[in-house]
Amino acid sequence: MCRWICFKAKAPVLLADLLTRPSHSIINQSFDCRLRLDEVRPLNGDGFGVGWYDPAEPFEPPCVFTSVLPAWNNPNLSRLAARIKSNLVFCHVRAASSGFPISESNCHPWSYGNLMFQHNGYVAGFNKIKRALQALIPDDIYHHIHGNTDSEWSFGLFLTQLNDPLRAQFSPHELKDALLKTITILNQLATAAGIDTPSLLNFAVTDGRSIVCTRYTNCTDREAASLYWSSGSKFTCDENNEYQMLKAAKKEDIVIISSEPLTFTKSDWCKIPDNTLFMVTPNVNVLLFPIEDEHWNPKADREPEVPWWTVAGRIRSGTE
Amino acid sequence: MCRWICFKAKAPVLLADLLTRPSHSIINQSFDCRLRLDEVRPLNGDGFGVGWYDPAEPFEPPCVFTSVLPAWNNPNLSRLAARIKSNLVFCHVRAASSGFPISESNCHPWSYGNLMFQHNGYVAGFNKIKRALQALIPDDIYHHIHGNTDSEWSFGLFLTQLNDPLRAQFSPHELKDALLKTITILNQLATAAGIDTPSLLNFAVTDGRSIVCTRYTNCTDREAASLYWSSGSKFTCDENNEYQMLKAAKKEDIVIISSEPLTFTKSDWCKIPDNTLFMVTPNVNVLLFPIEDEHWNPKADREPEVPWWTVAGRIRSGTE
Amino acid sequence: MCRWICFKAKAPVLLADLLTRPSHSIINQSFDCRLRLDEVRPLNGDGFGVGWYDPAEPFEPPCVFTSVLPAWNNPNLSRLAARIKSNLVFCHVRAASSGFPISESNCHPWSYGNLMFQHNGYVAGFNKIKRALQALIPDDIYHHIHGNTDSEWSFGLFLTQLNDPLRAQFSPHELKDALLKTITILNQLATAAGIDTPSLLNFAVTDGRSIVCTRYTNCTDREAASLYWSSGSKFTCDENNEYQMLKAAKKEDIVIISSEPLTFTKSDWCKIPDNTLFMVTPNVNVLLFPIEDEHWNPKADREPEVPWWTVAGRIRSGTE
Amino acid sequence: MCRWICFKAKAPVLLADLLTRPSHSIINQSFDCRLRLDEVRPLNGDGFGVGWYDPAEPFEPPCVFTSVLPAWNNPNLSRLAARIKSNLVFCHVRAASSGFPISESNCHPWSYGNLMFQHNGYVAGFNKIKRALQALIPDDIYHHIHGNTDSEWSFGLFLTQLNDPLRAQFSPHELKDALLKTITILNQLATAAGIDTPSLLNFAVTDGRSIVCTRYTNCTDREAASLYWSSGSKFTCDENNEYQMLKAAKKEDIVIISSEPLTFTKSDWCKIPDNTLFMVTPNVNVLLFPIEDEHWNPKADREPEVPWWTVAGRIRSGTE
Repeated sequence: MCRWICFKAKAPVLLADLLTRPSHSIINQSFDCRLRLDEVRPLNGDGFGVGWYDPAEPFEPPCVFTSVLPAWNNPNLSRLAARIKSNLVFCHVRAASSGFPISESNCHPWSYGNLMFQHNGYVAGFNKIKRALQALIPDDIYHHIHGNTDSEWSFGLFLTQLNDPLRAQFSPHELKDALLKTITILNQLATAAGIDTPSLLNFAVTDGRSIVCTRYTNCTDREAASLYWSSGSKFTCDENNEYQMLKAAKKEDIVIISSEPLTFTKSDWCKIPDNTLFMVTPNVNVLLFPIEDEHWNPKADREPEVPWWTVAGRIRSGTE
Repeated sequence: MCRWICFKAKAPVLLADLLTRPSHSIINQSFDCRLRLDEVRPLNGDGFGVGWYDPAEPFEPPCVFTSVLPAWNNPNLSRLAARIKSNLVFCHVRAASSGFPISESNCHPWSYGNLMFQHNGYVAGFNKIKRALQALIPDDIYHHIHGNTDSEWSFGLFLTQLNDPLRAQFSPHELKDALLKTITILNQLATAAGIDTPSLLNFAVTDGRSIVCTRYTNCTDREAASLYWSSGSKFTCDENNEYQMLKAAKKEDIVIISSEPLTFTKSDWCKIPDNTLFMVTPNVNVLLFPIEDEHWNPKADREPEVPWWTVAGRIRSGTE
Repeated sequence: MCRWICFKAKAPVLLADLLTRPSHSIINQSFDCRLRLDEVRPLNGDGFGVGWYDPAEPFEPPCVFTSVLPAWNNPNLSRLAARIKSNLVFCHVRAASSGFPISESNCHPWSYGNLMFQHNGYVAGFNKIKRALQALIPDDIYHHIHGNTDSEWSFGLFLTQLNDPLRAQFSPHELKDALLKTITILNQLATAAGIDTPSLLNFAVTDGRSIVCTRYTNCTDREAASLYWSSGSKFTCDENNEYQMLKAAKKEDIVIISSEPLTFTKSDWCKIPDNTLFMVTPNVNVLLFPIEDEHWNPKADREPEVPWWTVAGRIRSGTE
Repeated sequence: MCRWICFKAKAPVLLADLLTRPSHSIINQSFDCRLRLDEVRPLNGDGFGVGWYDPAEPFEPPCVFTSVLPAWNNPNLSRLAARIKSNLVFCHVRAASSGFPISESNCHPWSYGNLMFQHNGYVAGFNKIKRALQALIPDDIYHHIHGNTDSEWSFGLFLTQLNDPLRAQFSPHELKDALLKTITILNQLATAAGIDTPSLLNFAVTDGRSIVCTRYTNCTDREAASLYWSSGSKFTCDENNEYQMLKAAKKEDIVIISSEPLTFTKSDWCKIPDNTLFMVTPNVNVLLFPIEDEHWNPKADREPEVPWWTVAGRIRSGTE
């Protein structure tokens, strides 16, 4: 289980305003995440990655920076975030699972041509389906995969669903169709292998113009891994040094999707329903699509037992 | 604030039995420490170090392994701990303070000749006394210091109190006197600089034969950073896979000192009183000396408000 | 001994076109440098750093990325260089000297406010003058220094010569005067300490608008560490995939200064004379000032015994 | 192309006496190797690994330490080598090939149960045979492989040839047969895939008691990658600080096998002939077996054009 964030905005945003400065930023989630389902360690300290597109070169591949060091106390991340602006950013903090060692190759997000991908969750029983999954992937993608995680192989499977994944751009619906097909195939492989533990498939993918992501589990009676979104005209710091989402007009100029809300202002954040595909179009419009496959259960969207915003005595960063 | 452990035993002990396998081992304390006073992050993930003496070469310098990566999920630490045995081991997991960056040079323990040193806590207002402290240290020690932490400079000050710190061995009382003098000088420097915030000085030092350590604060009305000890004939794993301290005879064959108990068996662990020097002699005898300076307050040893062993729902390591 | 490069251009340049793609780029110099005086290892593999200013924010501090890994085979450097453009860039590959360990804190370039600094060479007998040098530096700069190298302390001494080093900008002559004064003081300290081995002081400093750098040794009969420059209208790749400096008009649009030429086109590169200060003004004009102190010797600018461009069978990068 | 060393001795040897102190030690080979066939960079700086068996526990798995940092200037390697003794050690310095990134997972040696393996060279056209090779490997070994190199998959293929690779010990002839079968299968896979570039297969494997290694290429008219051996009663430092192999009696107490000789004393080192399997038995006897398959060519063992020991002006380590 990991944590990720992505955002798209009409005007370039300083990375620090999303990644490092909000009170429950992804940095904070790297050592104090609240909503991980596994309740093991509240830690995502096994490396991280951030990828962004150059606002002046929207049809060029993203720039990706990864590190095996934790995201907290990381001078390179602090300095890059304090100086780089982008319209579309992915960031991921990793909690390594057994068998998937700490290495830069295993850090999300990964890119291929202009496409970028990250995952929170896991593919259940991955070892039992790994060979069958690999058999579906053509050589050029197969040899592009340098790590060994279920997440990166899921990216390979996603790329396989696209017609020419090295194109400069894609329609958001192409990305949506390929991502849904990826989930369908993962489910089919699990069924064929007799796997009955549920997968958690919170994927995010972009071509630099659209974002498509999922909150999904193939279990009908448990919640998927947490995923929230917020949108408005500007995400900015108020006089109390708290970040707020301004809603100046009716239009949306920025959309943020994140494993956990970035702030403790409850009204700024909406939970994405279980088993839903979330789309941000090139014009920064938001569309939600229920994933009505055999695992669809409209009653499944239960509240977590302890809503995160009622947790007293929240831990704050000590050395900022 | 960091966490450390040290032990001395008559027969060599596999490092894993102390460092990685107990239920609240130092690995576990690296991501789930319970007793840190600062209540900021329960994390000591900014590097670690382990130093040990070769049982066959008791008058040779220790072997020290350090890493800037966290101690959890660290294959090198797991593999070294699973294969190396020693009679005398120091291990430290670090939480970096502001201004003291993550680097191998800043990882404890440090060594000089046969001596080894580690620290949990901080020297309050260190920047205000740094130059005066450095002026007390002779050149050979001064240039041996490669990092920039208050802890390593405290080690330099300790070495300065010894007559010929490159000797092969020392009496435990020489080490005790030098460590107490180090604390005295740190207090004098703080007073001279007008520093009124308290320091936390849990130091540990060894020459490979004796261990001398302190639980100390120069504040008369607050508790020092936590420090516990346990001793017996053998520290070993029972049929429920829990480590227990056996007390076969009256003699002590192993002594463990640790920032937090390594297990949840309350009866196995004694708290070291505030402002006390703790000594393990070459023959594995234990002596406690109250540090009765101007900060001595026999009523200061208050219980922490939430004793660690009553904490419900303790977090366990997920990927073991 | 290390290797560094810096450049200033009127229009932003992709970092890869200077740092990673030329045939004898700084990456190449990290494993195959030709002109190091010490003739020990042709290696500068003990970490690296790159710092750049945002073309859209010329009065903001630089963004600095450092790593303890070698510059070759470094995916983060390759990806950042392939996507980031800047008008003014510093880059440094490090060969650690004894006593100055590998750590991010010891990687050049360092920054302070808007100023950035890097060094190739060494301060001879540094341990003998370190305390006297530190005594000259005020507290705010003193505590900003986190590493332990002669180079970073030289930067501290440079900052000390400036009136308010946290200002947003400086005239190039202020920077020149402070850098010359730094050299003068280093010489005075060496004389006072009776050091008779020569220092090599190839410093580079910038405020984001001007660059001032030196090729300097305090030895009158030996050459200083190598330093070259090139200027023209554009530094670009020809049809043979070789980088060339175009000289379209009489004006200079780009100036590169580098420990070794970035290409094997001899006519594109001028050696900076020994004991010379080299200035690039905000308008990209170039000025050279001989440093006519007691170590000035106009005959000292001897050719190296084996000019680099005659070396047969030059080694090329294998995995590009 | 990488460099490796292994040795077996009757009495435990301090690792430093083999790995770090000889004049052309593996550390030295990491930045100044002389005999690499590819003539690209004389560098093996993309990580390293060292594995050893505990003399007191000969039937326990080895302890392996790996790092992505270069072997030179590595304090952990220096400290471990200066304190650890073993009868049987493997050590490897890596030059990463394109597509096989720098990561601890890709560092040699790898272990599985009591077995340990390292490789110098490459499997030609690996991408074309990777899937077919993987299909031959059973699941338990398949999922044990965490990196992505041709070398580690060759280890997987080797393990597949053994009956129960998790046994505590093996006869040297079992290891020999499995290693030869590994080479045969790699050749068959290459032929089936139409690969006509030659592979270089200098493999080394041990169970902690025997060593079996190969100097092999499937090219009949070119030399294999270099491999040397030395044996005698003791490998020790003379009064000139040069290591020498003593030959006190007729018996062999230590055998060293290394990609390049560890010293410049020509008479101490024998070249292993091309396409030969080299065996060190549990009793430290040496046996050589020509590999007389279809690539066998007894005239192939040509001298290299420039014998390494005639190279003038050899580079020495500067910061030892």
